Amino acid sequence: MIVLNGGSSSGKSGIARCLQAVLPDPWLVIGVDTLIDAMPASMQTTDAGIEFTSDGGVKVGPEFRLLQTAWMAGVAAMVRAGARVILDEVFLGGRGSQQLWQKVLAGLDVFWVGVRCEAPVAAGREVARGDRVQGMAVSQAEMVHQGVLYDLEVDTTHTASLACARTIAARLR
Amino acid sequence: MIVLNGGSSSGKSGIARCLQAVLPDPWLVIGVDTLIDAMPASMQTTDAGIEFTSDGGVKVGPEFRLLQTAWMAGVAAMVRAGARVILDEVFLGGRGSQQLWQKVLAGLDVFWVGVRCEAPVAAGREVARGDRVQGMAVSQAEMVHQGVLYDLEVDTTHTASLACARTIAARLR
Amino acid sequence: MIVLNGGSSSGKSGIARCLQAVLPDPWLVIGVDTLIDAMPASMQTTDAGIEFTSDGGVKVGPEFRLLQTAWMAGVAAMVRAGARVILDEVFLGGRGSQQLWQKVLAGLDVFWVGVRCEAPVAAGREVARGDRVQGMAVSQAEMVHQGVLYDLEVDTTHTASLACARTIAARLR
Amino acid sequence: MIVLNGGSSSGKSGIARCLQAVLPDPWLVIGVDTLIDAMPASMQTTDAGIEFTSDGGVKVGPEFRLLQTAWMAGVAAMVRAGARVILDEVFLGGRGSQQLWQKVLAGLDVFWVGVRCEAPVAAGREVARGDRVQGMAVSQAEMVHQGVLYDLEVDTTHTASLACARTIAARLR
Repeated sequence: MIVLNGGSSSGKSGIARCLQAVLPDPWLVIGVDTLIDAMPASMQTTDAGIEFTSDGGVKVGPEFRLLQTAWMAGVAAMVRAGARVILDEVFLGGRGSQQLWQKVLAGLDVFWVGVRCEAPVAAGREVARGDRVQGMAVSQAEMVHQGVLYDLEVDTTHTASLACARTIAARLR
Repeated sequence: MIVLNGGSSSGKSGIARCLQAVLPDPWLVIGVDTLIDAMPASMQTTDAGIEFTSDGGVKVGPEFRLLQTAWMAGVAAMVRAGARVILDEVFLGGRGSQQLWQKVLAGLDVFWVGVRCEAPVAAGREVARGDRVQGMAVSQAEMVHQGVLYDLEVDTTHTASLACARTIAARLR
Repeated sequence: MIVLNGGSSSGKSGIARCLQAVLPDPWLVIGVDTLIDAMPASMQTTDAGIEFTSDGGVKVGPEFRLLQTAWMAGVAAMVRAGARVILDEVFLGGRGSQQLWQKVLAGLDVFWVGVRCEAPVAAGREVARGDRVQGMAVSQAEMVHQGVLYDLEVDTTHTASLACARTIAARLR
Repeated sequence: MIVLNGGSSSGKSGIARCLQAVLPDPWLVIGVDTLIDAMPASMQTTDAGIEFTSDGGVKVGPEFRLLQTAWMAGVAAMVRAGARVILDEVFLGGRGSQQLWQKVLAGLDVFWVGVRCEAPVAAGREVARGDRVQGMAVSQAEMVHQGVLYDLEVDTTHTASLACARTIAARLR
């Protein structure tokens, strides 16, 4: 299992797709976006769910956390059942988020990758994508890495997704 | 857990979203489309993966099945960990597909729903959607229900998604 | 040229795609959604642009109107240059909106179609789609038809998109 | 009017969205993808329409050209009617494609921008996007610029979309 952690617009999803292309076996890409898509639309407008504030902040409520916990258990079970999984995640709680995953993934072989991107560059990519709340890239750029321990860190500020993916793949062998 | 089984363009996904809106608690919608999206793009062009033939057929290879089996275990684990899950599925193998799920979901409280739609009506909806391979609706309309055992069957031929969802919700209480 | 006018979730886009499938020549489908997608993302958050209120209302500002007017002239020019166009529109101003189009399309052969759907049914479809602001279907169901003159009206409440498209196509010959 | 010409995955669309964000007035982004989306689904599978070959080639038939010609006239009319338009284009015919546009846009103030990206880098982005036929980036990288005359050229190989957009915007004043 590979865990990619990075802020919004840091380039995680592009690296994940490149990893699928360069790794010899088929890997599933699963991410927090998958979880949000699976939730009721109403979860994005209530305090109990997830809220994207106009300045790029993300607030998560108790019902979101409950579903997220069950979903994490499910992802771990997929890996235990033999699926190769690339997790495309945003550790909003930094080290605390990693510890939750470490508990769930106990006993599994996990390769932890930090995906960094300088905030101004990530902010520019956010504008170029045009489909994200402006401000998320900057507000998450440092926060998600606070205290997190990695096997490898890549930086997409000056390096393309495919090159980052190759660096990761080389280390997995 | 609610399992919705029906052919392409039978209206499962619309019913699933309506169920999320009418049921009092938050439910996750997870479906085979989620799984296909998580796979490498190359799985849609190799014999080992999944192939959509030009006449609407779907062929599934050994690597697809391996990932699918692990994914099924993961979905079951989410439910065991407390998530309410609506499964949006297409039993390409009819009763055989149901038996695989029954094994994985053993011990869980499952409500099995057949979503039927007369083939010509489903084919018309396929044209109206414009994003599906033409022919899937007709080829799957009967096949996916072969020998499958249900707690409830709904028919979207003349009944709207929301009305079907209300019928299902009423039976769950 | 065919103009389809109807409220949100009345089924216009489905009918448009079915018309493309049943009509012998290739037709372009162009709609107000195309225009909104072409605008800057910021137009959806400023008073000068377009705003979707939380109760399903739509407010349009001066800069939106300016671009819309130029876009209408462009659509008319495509038709004059020989393109067959199906316009997928929402006459938020009812008869007034039609008169603006009539002026722009002066001299062209236009077939005006009203696409009706009873408000509760359209509201149910809005829930089933899951990607629209709830309330638009109801607030627009009657409003967009106020005083509008049609060559033909179809009603999707009990009739499928493909059947409506066939009715329209039969009248065009 | 601004015309951005470049191969698939060269970064045109990102630059176009950044231009919308940095330019003081509202600009519409219109591109060949808009046209393809407006066409019948069947146009993507017949010789008369547009075909994406498995090695990344693009073949365009007579019916596609007819609709494209009318669409070009429509885009020109939007600009004449006062819309600020950023055209996101792929000159499959190089200089010949530019000449067709020059004829249609005669008398208008057009700023021609070449968007270059080294083929291997564009190919890597194509993998990272995951939604394009592999091979288009490489096959188009040089071809679309053959003989084309520009007011400005930008290169996204080592420069971000937002920086390219700022360079273009600075030259427009």
